[in-house]
Amino acid sequence: MESMKTWTVYLAGEIHSDWREEIRRGCREAELPVVFTAPVTDHAASDDCGVAVLGAEESVFWKDRKGAQLNAIRTRTALGEADLVVVRFGEKHRQWNAAFDAGWAAALGKPLVILHPPEHSHALKEVDAAAQAVCERPGQVVDLLRYVVHGKLPAS
Amino acid sequence: MESMKTWTVYLAGEIHSDWREEIRRGCREAELPVVFTAPVTDHAASDDCGVAVLGAEESVFWKDRKGAQLNAIRTRTALGEADLVVVRFGEKHRQWNAAFDAGWAAALGKPLVILHPPEHSHALKEVDAAAQAVCERPGQVVDLLRYVVHGKLPAS
Amino acid sequence: MESMKTWTVYLAGEIHSDWREEIRRGCREAELPVVFTAPVTDHAASDDCGVAVLGAEESVFWKDRKGAQLNAIRTRTALGEADLVVVRFGEKHRQWNAAFDAGWAAALGKPLVILHPPEHSHALKEVDAAAQAVCERPGQVVDLLRYVVHGKLPAS
Amino acid sequence: MESMKTWTVYLAGEIHSDWREEIRRGCREAELPVVFTAPVTDHAASDDCGVAVLGAEESVFWKDRKGAQLNAIRTRTALGEADLVVVRFGEKHRQWNAAFDAGWAAALGKPLVILHPPEHSHALKEVDAAAQAVCERPGQVVDLLRYVVHGKLPAS
Amino acid sequence: MESMKTWTVYLAGEIHSDWREEIRRGCREAELPVVFTAPVTDHAASDDCGVAVLGAEESVFWKDRKGAQLNAIRTRTALGEADLVVVRFGEKHRQWNAAFDAGWAAALGKPLVILHPPEHSHALKEVDAAAQAVCERPGQVVDLLRYVVHGKLPAS
Amino acid sequence: MESMKTWTVYLAGEIHSDWREEIRRGCREAELPVVFTAPVTDHAASDDCGVAVLGAEESVFWKDRKGAQLNAIRTRTALGEADLVVVRFGEKHRQWNAAFDAGWAAALGKPLVILHPPEHSHALKEVDAAAQAVCERPGQVVDLLRYVVHGKLPAS
Amino acid sequence: MESMKTWTVYLAGEIHSDWREEIRRGCREAELPVVFTAPVTDHAASDDCGVAVLGAEESVFWKDRKGAQLNAIRTRTALGEADLVVVRFGEKHRQWNAAFDAGWAAALGKPLVILHPPEHSHALKEVDAAAQAVCERPGQVVDLLRYVVHGKLPAS
Amino acid sequence: MESMKTWTVYLAGEIHSDWREEIRRGCREAELPVVFTAPVTDHAASDDCGVAVLGAEESVFWKDRKGAQLNAIRTRTALGEADLVVVRFGEKHRQWNAAFDAGWAAALGKPLVILHPPEHSHALKEVDAAAQAVCERPGQVVDLLRYVVHGKLPAS
Repeated sequence: MESMKTWTVYLAGEIHSDWREEIRRGCREAELPVVFTAPVTDHAASDDCGVAVLGAEESVFWKDRKGAQLNAIRTRTALGEADLVVVRFGEKHRQWNAAFDAGWAAALGKPLVILHPPEHSHALKEVDAAAQAVCERPGQVVDLLRYVVHGKLPAS
Repeated sequence: MESMKTWTVYLAGEIHSDWREEIRRGCREAELPVVFTAPVTDHAASDDCGVAVLGAEESVFWKDRKGAQLNAIRTRTALGEADLVVVRFGEKHRQWNAAFDAGWAAALGKPLVILHPPEHSHALKEVDAAAQAVCERPGQVVDLLRYVVHGKLPAS
Repeated sequence: MESMKTWTVYLAGEIHSDWREEIRRGCREAELPVVFTAPVTDHAASDDCGVAVLGAEESVFWKDRKGAQLNAIRTRTALGEADLVVVRFGEKHRQWNAAFDAGWAAALGKPLVILHPPEHSHALKEVDAAAQAVCERPGQVVDLLRYVVHGKLPAS
Repeated sequence: MESMKTWTVYLAGEIHSDWREEIRRGCREAELPVVFTAPVTDHAASDDCGVAVLGAEESVFWKDRKGAQLNAIRTRTALGEADLVVVRFGEKHRQWNAAFDAGWAAALGKPLVILHPPEHSHALKEVDAAAQAVCERPGQVVDLLRYVVHGKLPAS
Repeated sequence: MESMKTWTVYLAGEIHSDWREEIRRGCREAELPVVFTAPVTDHAASDDCGVAVLGAEESVFWKDRKGAQLNAIRTRTALGEADLVVVRFGEKHRQWNAAFDAGWAAALGKPLVILHPPEHSHALKEVDAAAQAVCERPGQVVDLLRYVVHGKLPAS
Repeated sequence: MESMKTWTVYLAGEIHSDWREEIRRGCREAELPVVFTAPVTDHAASDDCGVAVLGAEESVFWKDRKGAQLNAIRTRTALGEADLVVVRFGEKHRQWNAAFDAGWAAALGKPLVILHPPEHSHALKEVDAAAQAVCERPGQVVDLLRYVVHGKLPAS
Repeated sequence: MESMKTWTVYLAGEIHSDWREEIRRGCREAELPVVFTAPVTDHAASDDCGVAVLGAEESVFWKDRKGAQLNAIRTRTALGEADLVVVRFGEKHRQWNAAFDAGWAAALGKPLVILHPPEHSHALKEVDAAAQAVCERPGQVVDLLRYVVHGKLPAS
Repeated sequence: MESMKTWTVYLAGEIHSDWREEIRRGCREAELPVVFTAPVTDHAASDDCGVAVLGAEESVFWKDRKGAQLNAIRTRTALGEADLVVVRFGEKHRQWNAAFDAGWAAALGKPLVILHPPEHSHALKEVDAAAQAVCERPGQVVDLLRYVVHGKLPAS
């Protein structure tokens, strides 16, 4: 008679490393009742989707606009349905996108977990301050989910 | 462990061509996890429902009112539950109805896709500007859904 | 691929006639995908529940308060989850309760159907004006649900 | 540097006695920073407004509908802007209207004060249970406002 | 101690006749405490604003988009702050824009008044059904405001 | 065709007695369609989770902060999804935590049941006043759920 | 042309020391554009208000209920209108009340400042974790307001 | 009788150039009814405020946390009260902060204007796509405000 809730976790942000797979694998091995959603992580498709679906544009600006608006359908739907939002900031790229998603999620009142290398701590201090947790490694997100779902601490 | 979300798509607007069936067929063939809702598309039933269910009226105005209010039960419920709202403006008819539904959906923050022939672009500019995408052909809505759901671009 | 939504209908108001059963039977015979919720319709239990569950009171006023608050847990939860709210005003009793539920439902934006004998039309005009439909007979509610769900008019 | 808030109090319900004037006079004498709003209390105007403003109707039902919808513009605006809603149930009339307003106000989360003679306590128990206070006499509403605004108990 | 509320009324829709001025003049003469807001009614400015403010576009589609998005800043802010929204549909033009605004306002729960010639009643039935009142002449909007604000019927 | 709703009940507050198990057992024996959620009730894990998952802290204050924020992910998610919130105040400890959860739940409009020994009545009067019911014994919560779900009074 | 916002600050919690006056005086001396609201801080009046205004009760429980519900009118209105909520936990008393207000404010998304002696840090960790700031002395609240309003750090 | 609304505009983002002053000056010269709000733009104060007001921290991470949380009181209050939010991305710095504010504002449904040099267009495409306008120069924000407020195009 305990509730068997499945947690929906949105994995936002960086798309150039395999951090999402690391979290998925960790949760699978721990048999956690968690399902994941994510933006389209195929960078080329994500850039080209607007014109591929809706027709060519001469201007790069409007090509980007069409694409960004399509991606937003997926992104905002997933953010709105998530129980928890994890936002990853990587070593490279500006990733304003990731910070924008974090701001959106925070305004919706979603529990937020920020994942970034420690050297970004000062630059990300406002984002971190809106989060329920700040992690350095994907494995910590798995530990966090195990605790939140089952109340179990990581084996030391 | 990926989320297997089924998308609910409301198909609003024009009821005098088979655009809904075209989108349904395209999604079926693409095996997309999408279910569709729609207003009552039987024009005569939609016009007569108020008096047929709730009793005759002498005045056409109040006959229309009774019918429109019944139809709104179905329409607003479907709009409220939709993950995505597609609104079609056809060649004929004023379709204030369609624009009203688009305004309602936009105010709810629903992702909106507008489908209309290019010659209506100027007259529909405010409606288009509230949308995430503007399509000319039903097949583009199928492509859009394939991309939003699976991140796959249309085969070129 | 059409959505197979099950409609949840809350049947509020009068508890001294069998109007709820009439609607349930009509929907069952029409095989409509509708489930019903209702307040506790056992009048004696509804009056006594507060003290029976939470302990006796000397004052009738506080006995009533305890009971009304318990009943509100069920009532408001059902109102909040309903796709459609039907409120019945009968021949007798003041039924401020029913009007209160109608006001609550209307403020939540729930589609509202009012069911009452025609002689109450003037006294109920503000309540009727907040509704999507006004019916005189329970059978009309069945017809309304058939139309809203399947787009079918009642056989004449 | 204390906030000098002016409280807006909506006086809903019965229109056949001078209870509103009694509350206004009491607050004036006590120099409380309270302003009042109310429905149109001219019964004839309130009944006829729809057809007087929007054109005649043959059917009484639709005459009432037009009037009730006009009155609702004033009523719901005032309810939405009120800091406190007082609803009076009198000796006569069914006053479903008053109960409807109470339900609407309660669903909005407005603090609610119910004013009625003690013999209605059982019939109004659900309405009372949604209120912050139940009064028998208009003077108690004045005392309540003095306490809420200034923290002063009535002189005994 | 009566509340001296100033009503804010948004006048949406048709921009090719002087209906707004007629309502303003009527309210001025009646000394009603009403202020009005409106979209930009200079058609040429409204069409060109996007490129005039934000830079030229080669494509008409994107010129229109830029303009429509600028206009939406004014429109939605005014809709959001209005106590009452009047939407006028004129003899000519498709005015999907007006219907879109009506849908937006209705979804926000704003009291809505629709103003149109009687020959549009059937085509506008869904829009009318979401409104608190349907008028044929601007003078009726003035009468409506006099009643809503002061409870006075028009002199006959 | 009656709705077979499963009620989700969040059991907040005291973690040093077996009151949750008592309620679970009672509901199991009564075969009520109720599932329960709860905070992590392993006191040591709940205190240490922050540093165990997210890394050590020198300061106890920030260790507590990290832990409290992790626990809040679980707590607020459960509060937000609950149909009913039960908050238990025990004999010992300050349990500001429990009162905080009660305030949060009340602000969300959740039906609230407070469970405490009678000697705390005065100190908890504001909390009790926001609740739909006040119980002294866990068995009363079971009786309450039986009534709310099935409309059955406890056997006397 | 800078906005000259006046901040409304609600001072919740402990009523047995002069911390409110200390904050008011500090803000007055610093000439900050801040107005304060507070619960009724006359303990006896706050305890007796229910029966003094609404009539005597035999049972202490219901006397407390009547009083707590009156106080909630003032409290929740002030919480809802506050730009910032400060909650003080003192040395003595259980102050579940204060924690309840903190939970309510946090659920509304109000910026929250908690003021308490350091020895309560562990017991208040969940409350502190929902706050934007934790202070030990009233003077820090003045410094905080000076910074938030004017961007000026305290003179060191 | 036209509404004389004063627009409140929040100027978020980059703090290392004088773009805010440029917009303020332009609006002053144009005599627009606009007031501005902004984060604390004194970089050192903004970095140190947490420990200056709330007490020293050994760890830079928690020093930053305290500061970021104080700044968020000002930032979120201003975002919540703004009629329009302008977010500036400059040439240097990562400015995740700015993107976070843009995401927050967009989720609240605030009209958003993004101001950035054209070379950031691709990196900012998701942020731009959530905006009502994208500007390159502060003067365009002034032109935009003139149009939105008065319906006047910039003199060419």
